[in-house]
Amino acid sequence: MDGTPDAMIAAMGARARAAARVLAATPTAVKQHAIAEAAEALRVAQPAILEANAADMAQATAAGLSPAMLDRLRLDPSRIAAMADGVAAVAGLADPVGAIIDETVRPNGLALARVRVPIGVIGIVYESRPNVTADAAALCIGSGNAAILRGGSEARRSNAAIHAGLAAGLAAGGLPHDSVQLVATTDRAAVGAMLSAEGVIDLVIPRGGKGLVARVQAEARIPVLAHLDGINHVYVDASAEPAMAAAIVRDAKMRRTGVCGAMETLLIDRAYPAARALVAALRATGCEVRGDAAVLALDPAILPATEADWDTEYLDAIASVALVGGVAGAIAHIARHGSHHTDAIVAEDAGVAERFLAEVDSAIVLWNASTQFADGGEFGLGAEIGIATGRLHARGPVALEGLTTYKWVGKGAGQVRG
Amino acid sequence: MDGTPDAMIAAMGARARAAARVLAATPTAVKQHAIAEAAEALRVAQPAILEANAADMAQATAAGLSPAMLDRLRLDPSRIAAMADGVAAVAGLADPVGAIIDETVRPNGLALARVRVPIGVIGIVYESRPNVTADAAALCIGSGNAAILRGGSEARRSNAAIHAGLAAGLAAGGLPHDSVQLVATTDRAAVGAMLSAEGVIDLVIPRGGKGLVARVQAEARIPVLAHLDGINHVYVDASAEPAMAAAIVRDAKMRRTGVCGAMETLLIDRAYPAARALVAALRATGCEVRGDAAVLALDPAILPATEADWDTEYLDAIASVALVGGVAGAIAHIARHGSHHTDAIVAEDAGVAERFLAEVDSAIVLWNASTQFADGGEFGLGAEIGIATGRLHARGPVALEGLTTYKWVGKGAGQVRG
Repeated sequence: MDGTPDAMIAAMGARARAAARVLAATPTAVKQHAIAEAAEALRVAQPAILEANAADMAQATAAGLSPAMLDRLRLDPSRIAAMADGVAAVAGLADPVGAIIDETVRPNGLALARVRVPIGVIGIVYESRPNVTADAAALCIGSGNAAILRGGSEARRSNAAIHAGLAAGLAAGGLPHDSVQLVATTDRAAVGAMLSAEGVIDLVIPRGGKGLVARVQAEARIPVLAHLDGINHVYVDASAEPAMAAAIVRDAKMRRTGVCGAMETLLIDRAYPAARALVAALRATGCEVRGDAAVLALDPAILPATEADWDTEYLDAIASVALVGGVAGAIAHIARHGSHHTDAIVAEDAGVAERFLAEVDSAIVLWNASTQFADGGEFGLGAEIGIATGRLHARGPVALEGLTTYKWVGKGAGQVRG
Repeated sequence: MDGTPDAMIAAMGARARAAARVLAATPTAVKQHAIAEAAEALRVAQPAILEANAADMAQATAAGLSPAMLDRLRLDPSRIAAMADGVAAVAGLADPVGAIIDETVRPNGLALARVRVPIGVIGIVYESRPNVTADAAALCIGSGNAAILRGGSEARRSNAAIHAGLAAGLAAGGLPHDSVQLVATTDRAAVGAMLSAEGVIDLVIPRGGKGLVARVQAEARIPVLAHLDGINHVYVDASAEPAMAAAIVRDAKMRRTGVCGAMETLLIDRAYPAARALVAALRATGCEVRGDAAVLALDPAILPATEADWDTEYLDAIASVALVGGVAGAIAHIARHGSHHTDAIVAEDAGVAERFLAEVDSAIVLWNASTQFADGGEFGLGAEIGIATGRLHARGPVALEGLTTYKWVGKGAGQVRG
């Protein structure tokens, strides 16, 4: 290796590819056992992880990181236990590898099946939360992929300690040593090398804030599974049941305001009779409301929304609210301002609801349910590596299946095309 | 529009997006009827298409294009009839849109389904064969997508005439006018604008030679569904039945040498007793054989293979041949030199064959069948927009289903996450 970031990633990638070949052929029980071993190894490594984290925290505190960033970086025994529990949970998930998607026998007798296989080598680029080291690695291994992890520089020691525990557990479980590799350098050029590693890394998944995801999408020469903004809408139709509408709107906005499934914009049918009470109920939760002219007319104390509000992911106790002309108006507003993440309708009229579900072009569309259900666990996937807002390969919550692809397997008896 | 290629593609893209919204909600019967109308319109437009093609051919001949390129460009009544038949065949394919991939009811009563939906706006960039204008458009429409087509400059008039017929037929069938748009300019910058049209074009599919595909992959800022090389292998195991092996090898190499499913390298188990006869049978078809040292020992008249031969897609009556150490040797050779397209094993030993099928990492793996079956029609897809050699979204032959994605549709009764 000539010491450049490209050469380093190429060398790690070659080792990862060799590991991926072994992992692709590893039986489910062996993978699951190794993941359980890794969870146990994380528990055993708790003292080393806490020591490494204390050093990272000291440096980050001295460097003046914000309280929010320090909180993301901080580990304690309960957070390490939760991390180990998360890894152990992946050991219990159904293995998608080997599943037959569909099969057919052609008129010439050739039997064809599409069989799920791992993607191969997956790169994960993430920021300060060190638990991603364990979460992402477990999901990659559970789906038969090798992983190359690149965490944030401020979590360097924590990530290394977590990775050491994890790798020891996976090796004890019989998996290749290079199944999960951690990029040791904090040189930013290493990320660039990962993003341009065509044929070396098959897929890169950014985990972090908008800045990171946008950089990865802008620079990547390899496929990206990315979650960008969640500018999510709840549309309350004229036919909505008012108590249900108020409950869903409150939950969608205020249960947790910082998650990507939170509602950012409330759209109310002009014909909805309880609009004033709905806005009041939202304001009563402590949410700041920014309204269009029609909403301001309901309550002059409401702040006026600017054009930028409709395109803003607040991730805070703020909502933009507009009155729209029925479901068609809601669909048009979402088409213009939405981010293809999660949008919901509250309605008793099934025809209106079905139109919304069909025509709103988002990864997740919901009828009479809160947008805060946008989550792999809530969807029954048992875990989540992210919520994809792209259109190809996998959409919405992604867990093990989204980390696989398929191959066509054909079995003949000497058929030639002739 | 300010007249730049970017502005032109942005404007076409906005029209395509509006059309895509309509197409996504268009019933199967309407789409199929419109495609049948388009096929009929192509037949009616035959005189105009022939006249346009004659002008293209005259210019191309004067410009000194190669006979092979002139043949690809040339249309005649039978080729136009075949093109119309191909479009009509798409009208008969099953519509993937609306199909439910899977569904579940969560413990809280939330009913979730993954429902197939069109991708949205698909860009097709292609070279001299004008029939792609019709083929690709029909597959996009059949899967509910809007299409933006950019053909080769030498086929400009032919493509315009085909597009005019097609668009008239689709419009007569009730589809939006902008369902299929043709980029009128032959300015190469228009391709660059398509490849960087993030959020405007959802997927770009290159159709043409290696140079075009490589340029698209290198420049694209949007997802690409690409077929690169088909460096395909046939491995003949010690357990192979000799007559079957010879028949499959002959067909895989020589049925048509210029197709991407053609065999380029023959791997023979060192323990296969009929290696000399197999190589002789291949040479007897007129195929040039380039062998490694062990193959040269079978027949000194064989040409020696260089290291580059193992990585070469000849697309000609040439094959590289190596002796390998059993199935493990074959798998290792393919891992090093293959292009993840199509690889086959000839063997009577089922255990050996299953290992090959599991461990060879290609879009298509075949047991006792010719690699020349790598084709959407042969796989029962009814058509093919290409054979994808990437790993994500769709792999191998891609027809209508590969041009769709899915959304999560959730139906509740007022569930909040709480």
